[in-house]
Amino acid sequence: MKQRVSLLFALSLLLGIISSSAQQNLGRVDNYTSPEIGADGSVTLRLYAPKAEEVKVTGDFLTGEATMIRNENGVWEYHSEPLASELYSYSFIVDGMRDVRDPMNSYAMRDVGSLFNYFIVGGERGDLYSAQNVAHGTLSRVWADMGGVSRRMTLYTPAGYEEAAQSYPTLYLLHGMGGDEEAWVATGRVCEIMDNLIAAGKVEPMIVVMTNGCTKHVSAPGYSHEGMWRPYMTGSMDGSFETMFPTIVEWVEAHYRVKASRESRAIAGLSMGGFHSLQISKTYPEMFDYVGLFSAAIFRGKEDVEIYKNLEAGLEKQFAAEPRLYWIAIGKDDFLYDENVRYRELLDAKGYPYTYVESDGGHVWRNWRVYLSQFTPLLFRAEK
Amino acid sequence: MKQRVSLLFALSLLLGIISSSAQQNLGRVDNYTSPEIGADGSVTLRLYAPKAEEVKVTGDFLTGEATMIRNENGVWEYHSEPLASELYSYSFIVDGMRDVRDPMNSYAMRDVGSLFNYFIVGGERGDLYSAQNVAHGTLSRVWADMGGVSRRMTLYTPAGYEEAAQSYPTLYLLHGMGGDEEAWVATGRVCEIMDNLIAAGKVEPMIVVMTNGCTKHVSAPGYSHEGMWRPYMTGSMDGSFETMFPTIVEWVEAHYRVKASRESRAIAGLSMGGFHSLQISKTYPEMFDYVGLFSAAIFRGKEDVEIYKNLEAGLEKQFAAEPRLYWIAIGKDDFLYDENVRYRELLDAKGYPYTYVESDGGHVWRNWRVYLSQFTPLLFRAEK
Repeated sequence: MKQRVSLLFALSLLLGIISSSAQQNLGRVDNYTSPEIGADGSVTLRLYAPKAEEVKVTGDFLTGEATMIRNENGVWEYHSEPLASELYSYSFIVDGMRDVRDPMNSYAMRDVGSLFNYFIVGGERGDLYSAQNVAHGTLSRVWADMGGVSRRMTLYTPAGYEEAAQSYPTLYLLHGMGGDEEAWVATGRVCEIMDNLIAAGKVEPMIVVMTNGCTKHVSAPGYSHEGMWRPYMTGSMDGSFETMFPTIVEWVEAHYRVKASRESRAIAGLSMGGFHSLQISKTYPEMFDYVGLFSAAIFRGKEDVEIYKNLEAGLEKQFAAEPRLYWIAIGKDDFLYDENVRYRELLDAKGYPYTYVESDGGHVWRNWRVYLSQFTPLLFRAEK
Repeated sequence: MKQRVSLLFALSLLLGIISSSAQQNLGRVDNYTSPEIGADGSVTLRLYAPKAEEVKVTGDFLTGEATMIRNENGVWEYHSEPLASELYSYSFIVDGMRDVRDPMNSYAMRDVGSLFNYFIVGGERGDLYSAQNVAHGTLSRVWADMGGVSRRMTLYTPAGYEEAAQSYPTLYLLHGMGGDEEAWVATGRVCEIMDNLIAAGKVEPMIVVMTNGCTKHVSAPGYSHEGMWRPYMTGSMDGSFETMFPTIVEWVEAHYRVKASRESRAIAGLSMGGFHSLQISKTYPEMFDYVGLFSAAIFRGKEDVEIYKNLEAGLEKQFAAEPRLYWIAIGKDDFLYDENVRYRELLDAKGYPYTYVESDGGHVWRNWRVYLSQFTPLLFRAEK
């Protein structure tokens, strides 16, 4: 991210056009850059806080907090070691005031109720999560009628969809608690990952359907008559989303050029979305040939819900139909690790085949982006 | 926006699922709400800044800055008078550190390079800018081939587009300097305004095409291989966008069910986008029957550009074709007011008919949202 303030001023003077926001900028001390990514993968973060006594930075590239150093202009600075290629988020702490955003960084993503600034260190993962010079798919926010209730969904269609006559396979990609139909796009980097993997020939062109798995809301906050609440840790584990799911598939298949068959449908989700994927694929064994459980909640649903009862009988039916891929991934430090061990023991005892990936780390988006990029190359290609 | 932290904790304890971001929240003092909209339209803004000596708030509902009052818990508070119904943005100033965002507000929009928190006071305008319980259109981010270069566009299709067989009229809606294909959606509230006006029967269902009028970029920052720069005050006033424009119309009409005729096409834009609308509608007089100039730049283009030469001859041709609507709006305090006076004098001298709306205020989004809601009801209905 380069500094363009001088260019801004030059253009403003040249053309005489200064927008209201640029006018608001004129009084600011903003002749510095943040974040600044070094050629070695280090990052320098800066914050103008002229009267602060202590400024710290916290982020997922740090253990705990790091102290920033004040320069003579009142700009505080932190310079990291070279970082592994990745997408990182951060915030500042100014004299005990937490969650201070970086006013020089235009890039922020919402995770549940909070906005986080982020930056990307290029290289392997960072490049995968960045838009590249490849053909890009279309991202659409649609409203779908689900039995008389209109609900919002986000759909990725691969590059060429608008021009092609062919039909595509479909991945249903589900969020976790506190998430919604925006989560996988904002924090999960679905567009970038899919564009890049499809362009590299590593992933089949497919449609990705991102639903809202919280049935008491029809959309992410702010997009419907339900208003602008502060997003919180909520979800649906009462059978309602699983019951609604066939209507979603029906709507997608009526409105998009998709291959409407089991071997062309996949479902995957993170955390609560992994739980949903498990339950949905088990409840409708003829619907999906590919199932992905990313850091999945397993033994969590309300006990009196019919759909959640008789897990073993359901799995027996599902595995009798021989799904092409049943894929489980979890991090060693995930708080759901133990119940994933228990679940695999159950599958092992029955001799049900699955693929297992164990990663470092915990219950974090960093892992879910990786799982998505590991899972999607396996879809719609496997031989039975 | 209600406080849901207690519900978050209850759910976390109940289900044992705490995401990484929720874990990050645990140490925070966040048992307060901001913003809080009162029944009388007043707003209370709060910020936890335990060691600050002076906290102020600035925003477009204030003249200058207002001082906030510290309570015993280190939370600073500002309480406004009742405000007129509107969408408002704001930021805090903590001991001279400007652009401090509200960590309790999940809603922010980017204007050029800065993210601003916002809130909405309900009522007439506020309700128009909020999602209501009406049928919603689809919003798509597409990539369109413009003579070998793929460029990003944002398209609104009205509710029912996916189900209908009919074709729709099209409004091309252009941003100003420093803007891009995201500006009208984020700050201009296009989806909410169009959904609400169409549902009320005040506006014909139409497709809205939001282009990127800065030809040296193929997309808003972050969405293409051009990378993640900090958005700045740039645009194209060198004839390149006007030259490219027929390709955009061609692409839209090849890919969407639109009425491909002059009386079903409108073009409008703000500031530089008003300049573009003027130049494009003049250069291609058979393309648009409806033209909207919102706080338009007029006499601004590079002088040696062929398209910008012979303005009067071009207008003569355009008005000889009798456009159904030539609509000009500007605020009394706009820095472009004088050149709009000059332009109207030119039109008056020639006897070219136009509709003129003069509002209060300056070169601000508050006016452009109003102009959009005044202009669109006039489209595709006027009798010649």
